[in-house]
Amino acid sequence: MKHARPLPSYLAQRYHGWKATTFEENHAWYRRLANEGQRPRAMIVSCCDSRVHVTSIFGADQGEFFIHRNVANLVPPYEPDGDRHGTSAAVEYAVTALNVAHLIVLGHSGCGGVAGCHAMCAGNAPELEERSSFVGRWMDILRPGYERIKGKSEDEIRALELEGVLVSLENLMTFPFVAKAVEDGSLTLHGLWTDIGEGSLLAYDPASGSYKPV
Amino acid sequence: MKHARPLPSYLAQRYHGWKATTFEENHAWYRRLANEGQRPRAMIVSCCDSRVHVTSIFGADQGEFFIHRNVANLVPPYEPDGDRHGTSAAVEYAVTALNVAHLIVLGHSGCGGVAGCHAMCAGNAPELEERSSFVGRWMDILRPGYERIKGKSEDEIRALELEGVLVSLENLMTFPFVAKAVEDGSLTLHGLWTDIGEGSLLAYDPASGSYKPV
Amino acid sequence: MKHARPLPSYLAQRYHGWKATTFEENHAWYRRLANEGQRPRAMIVSCCDSRVHVTSIFGADQGEFFIHRNVANLVPPYEPDGDRHGTSAAVEYAVTALNVAHLIVLGHSGCGGVAGCHAMCAGNAPELEERSSFVGRWMDILRPGYERIKGKSEDEIRALELEGVLVSLENLMTFPFVAKAVEDGSLTLHGLWTDIGEGSLLAYDPASGSYKPV
Amino acid sequence: MKHARPLPSYLAQRYHGWKATTFEENHAWYRRLANEGQRPRAMIVSCCDSRVHVTSIFGADQGEFFIHRNVANLVPPYEPDGDRHGTSAAVEYAVTALNVAHLIVLGHSGCGGVAGCHAMCAGNAPELEERSSFVGRWMDILRPGYERIKGKSEDEIRALELEGVLVSLENLMTFPFVAKAVEDGSLTLHGLWTDIGEGSLLAYDPASGSYKPV
Repeated sequence: MKHARPLPSYLAQRYHGWKATTFEENHAWYRRLANEGQRPRAMIVSCCDSRVHVTSIFGADQGEFFIHRNVANLVPPYEPDGDRHGTSAAVEYAVTALNVAHLIVLGHSGCGGVAGCHAMCAGNAPELEERSSFVGRWMDILRPGYERIKGKSEDEIRALELEGVLVSLENLMTFPFVAKAVEDGSLTLHGLWTDIGEGSLLAYDPASGSYKPV
Repeated sequence: MKHARPLPSYLAQRYHGWKATTFEENHAWYRRLANEGQRPRAMIVSCCDSRVHVTSIFGADQGEFFIHRNVANLVPPYEPDGDRHGTSAAVEYAVTALNVAHLIVLGHSGCGGVAGCHAMCAGNAPELEERSSFVGRWMDILRPGYERIKGKSEDEIRALELEGVLVSLENLMTFPFVAKAVEDGSLTLHGLWTDIGEGSLLAYDPASGSYKPV
Repeated sequence: MKHARPLPSYLAQRYHGWKATTFEENHAWYRRLANEGQRPRAMIVSCCDSRVHVTSIFGADQGEFFIHRNVANLVPPYEPDGDRHGTSAAVEYAVTALNVAHLIVLGHSGCGGVAGCHAMCAGNAPELEERSSFVGRWMDILRPGYERIKGKSEDEIRALELEGVLVSLENLMTFPFVAKAVEDGSLTLHGLWTDIGEGSLLAYDPASGSYKPV
Repeated sequence: MKHARPLPSYLAQRYHGWKATTFEENHAWYRRLANEGQRPRAMIVSCCDSRVHVTSIFGADQGEFFIHRNVANLVPPYEPDGDRHGTSAAVEYAVTALNVAHLIVLGHSGCGGVAGCHAMCAGNAPELEERSSFVGRWMDILRPGYERIKGKSEDEIRALELEGVLVSLENLMTFPFVAKAVEDGSLTLHGLWTDIGEGSLLAYDPASGSYKPV
């Protein structure tokens, strides 16, 4: 792999700062985590977006959350076709190997993936319709959400961000091991959405069929 | 989505703590990030493992890193077949839409996914060979790495963790837009591996063909 | 004291979150509590076990409960021999200085101390019999309970957890100031046991000589 | 045990409230904690005082902290004499059976135990000098601290609260299993003090030999 380059020095410097402080303060715990393995309480599915820091929002201790981050925090439906499904693999590992107690899908404002999906579904982004567009094909997962919110909101992109979380939760329930764990009470699902500029956090409430502030 | 449940109260409490402190201290910056969009300098591919906190290791500020986390921090090869490829979508978005300057793959010690892959390739985990195993099919990406390290190390799992980072970097180079950005100098690739219990960080050095401490 | 280390940063962060929210919302009350001193209504004796949160179970407000937590929520018999008796000091302070109205002993399922006592009394834990075993000598308090439940139950450890609460209540009555307060009606005793996994709460009912759901 | 009385109804009511909300929201996690046992990261030694809520200050999740609460958050010196030592048993269990990574002693303002110790050592509380005073004999642990702060401060009681945390940390180091774990890096000690009315939190800093705000 001749293309690898040295780590940019500002990152090397920050690493050494972390090593000398945070790691040093916590090395007894980190060593235990290394020896005994992880036992996270929850899995969180969030976006790759650089503005979403789930560990910060939830004051995470090392070892608390199993975190999968992908474009637009999507979970595809269950499709055991022998192909590669990275998100499904993460969900399978969290639920069947780690037995997490909570599975949280966290959406956010200003999501580029959701905006692209909206443009594509509205006919304004033909390049995303192409077979070779990885982002387009990935955002196909959210098409059913677009059909449900289309024409029903003044801010369709925002509506699609909120709907996307529900689509992912619904897809999660198509995984037999997720449905079983939810039904036997060993796993609970949670749908959240955060506004990056306002710092607010909403949770989906099935009783009212709407999102409410946490 | 009738299955959604309220957020556990200890997480709600932590969120409110974050809102009143970290968010409050930074809200001018967060508002700018919300209004102007993200402009991350680097993409990091790391593992979902709850013990790996890339934001902590690199003292990440909000908005700095576009982070994709999947099982065993893998990147599959380029396959524009019209199917869903979540990791490829994340890479495509980071390189072509966000124009990140660095693409970092970060492996780690004690990786459950890598250990599973090793067991599968060594013939000790038939359940992972099944068509319906999402983890097994996902870890197929690392099979070529197993072939290269097999029988050459006293600690094959450790060797496979290190090799896995190189497999992902090689696969990255099969994406035309990655190869082009690397060749025209607008993108650099980096292969890292961290030991959770020791807090050490190694970087792959192509000149020596080995990992060196950062 | 050269061995003290800085507080792990995730705890410092959580503290600042609490300060900015819970403390801020309640500071008038906290200041009064600081100026006027505590006036708790009840003392609770519970286990150190990290899974038992008495403040949570009883929706405790700051200032409500004087809480002593030790291994297996035990109270030793009255022994004014001039030696150090931390639990007896806590009981003395609560009853004679604070005049609490209720004294609650709260046992729980899966108690490691009780399980150790059972193993020791059954002859299966010689290391706990050693003079130098603090846990063993502490759990000696529960030996009379073991004699009473031995051979009378299919689940002797569970039986010993329930019996341990009664042993502690009996021991409490050997303290002259406790017996006097109980007799003059200024103090009532209560024996509880909670199942961690089920969230149930049982209270001892002297009329039937058994535990009943609260 | 004929003296047990039913739980006061306001507490029964609060329990039912907790059961229907917090427990219900978290029962998947509580069941796992029940089945798999606790794995707390830290032990905290704090006071029984009703105004000190360590779980609240540190946003504790169920299962995170092994908490021992006694009068004045004291740890006695190592004394393996075959007598009952409840605090030593708790420390032994946390360090040798649970392998906690941190041991935190948390003092606080307005501590009645410390004030009593000060009065006793200054000759103003003869009743505490009596052999039969459990509080007096317990507070003897703090006498060495009184000798060190006497005449050196305008607020000797406050000074004694702060010194008491250091006395406990020093005593902890007399336990062979604590000293060994500290020396091999698997355990770190921390000395904290909180002001109830101000909500502040100080940590002892050995480099300067003084307490600093967290």
